[in-house]
Amino acid sequence: MVPDYAKARQGRRAHYDEATIHAILDTGLVGHVGFVAEGRPMVIPMAFARSGSTLYIHGASKTRLMGLDGQKLCLIVTHLTGIVVARSSFHHSVNYRSAVIHGEARRVTGEEHHCALDAITNHLLPGRTSELRAMTAQELKATGVIALEIEAASAKIRTGPPVEDPVDLPSTLWGGVVPVVTALGTGIQDAHTPEGVPLPASIRAAQAKFVA
Amino acid sequence: MVPDYAKARQGRRAHYDEATIHAILDTGLVGHVGFVAEGRPMVIPMAFARSGSTLYIHGASKTRLMGLDGQKLCLIVTHLTGIVVARSSFHHSVNYRSAVIHGEARRVTGEEHHCALDAITNHLLPGRTSELRAMTAQELKATGVIALEIEAASAKIRTGPPVEDPVDLPSTLWGGVVPVVTALGTGIQDAHTPEGVPLPASIRAAQAKFVA
Repeated sequence: MVPDYAKARQGRRAHYDEATIHAILDTGLVGHVGFVAEGRPMVIPMAFARSGSTLYIHGASKTRLMGLDGQKLCLIVTHLTGIVVARSSFHHSVNYRSAVIHGEARRVTGEEHHCALDAITNHLLPGRTSELRAMTAQELKATGVIALEIEAASAKIRTGPPVEDPVDLPSTLWGGVVPVVTALGTGIQDAHTPEGVPLPASIRAAQAKFVA
Repeated sequence: MVPDYAKARQGRRAHYDEATIHAILDTGLVGHVGFVAEGRPMVIPMAFARSGSTLYIHGASKTRLMGLDGQKLCLIVTHLTGIVVARSSFHHSVNYRSAVIHGEARRVTGEEHHCALDAITNHLLPGRTSELRAMTAQELKATGVIALEIEAASAKIRTGPPVEDPVDLPSTLWGGVVPVVTALGTGIQDAHTPEGVPLPASIRAAQAKFVA
């Protein structure tokens, strides 16, 4: 059952099946996390990861977000895929896929804390943690993790050409879609990378994963 | 004066000057709008436009967002520009520019309503409304506009290579930045576009405006 607050207002673009929602989450580079602080809405862009029906976000232990244990959170991942160009201003739109997750924040500890941090690194760079030394106790302590159990979730998807008012057709005007393309470029190595070291497998995996 | 709630927690990445904040807003394709509904945080991706110190968002007149007159809103625009690949999991990061605006929702009417709708269309496709017929009274009535006067604003920017723990250097590992590139592709015309009609100037202007 999808609670009313999580229902999309435009029903024909709404999706509530897990596979659709997970696919949008899993191919998102970052999410935007909404929370309420002193009665005021706050939104912050965050790296994240999904493990089953749990989302993880992390941050320095001292940050505002880590103090939200028990409070309601909202995480949204949006893929903007096109600008929809119509013959009337009214029918201009955008193509996109977005997933919104509602749940309660839970401060994560112990083994789950360690696994969640690995998952967040590996979400952006699949397999990266196996290329690196283990985290130190000090590093683990400095980085907090908040879990968001998926209580309610919905996706919205718009694809395809513009809708037009019949009065605007036939038309001499151009109409259609301008694709918005997001992709990873060629890795730029820093000054500490020795000559001839190839791109790690995790970066090649990311370049294959995050394509428009 | 920047109120405490609008201050970035990591001071060294924070910017509060108008030119920096406006540049991030003006080159963002969409924003994410946060609001509070029944005590719960909500975040929605939205097309928007800036005019001076006012932001405009629009939606069907009947939607939840249009009922928020007088309530607090938050609008964030995020440009993700790179994945920062370090020699430790701890120092992985992302490069980005984001601007967060706080203010109160004001339902817009009259001439400002019309101008705001034009501004939202022209934000994504500069000059598009001059290529189109005028909006009808019915279309104006069906689309509500909410203004968000900028009460407090901040930007956060991270650029450049990874920070490293001295124990991880010198290293045999690859480190650096993988660029995240967002750009507009070639326009795909729909079935109503007559043969030989060129791309409108507004699309060429958008392709020049929205580059990574």
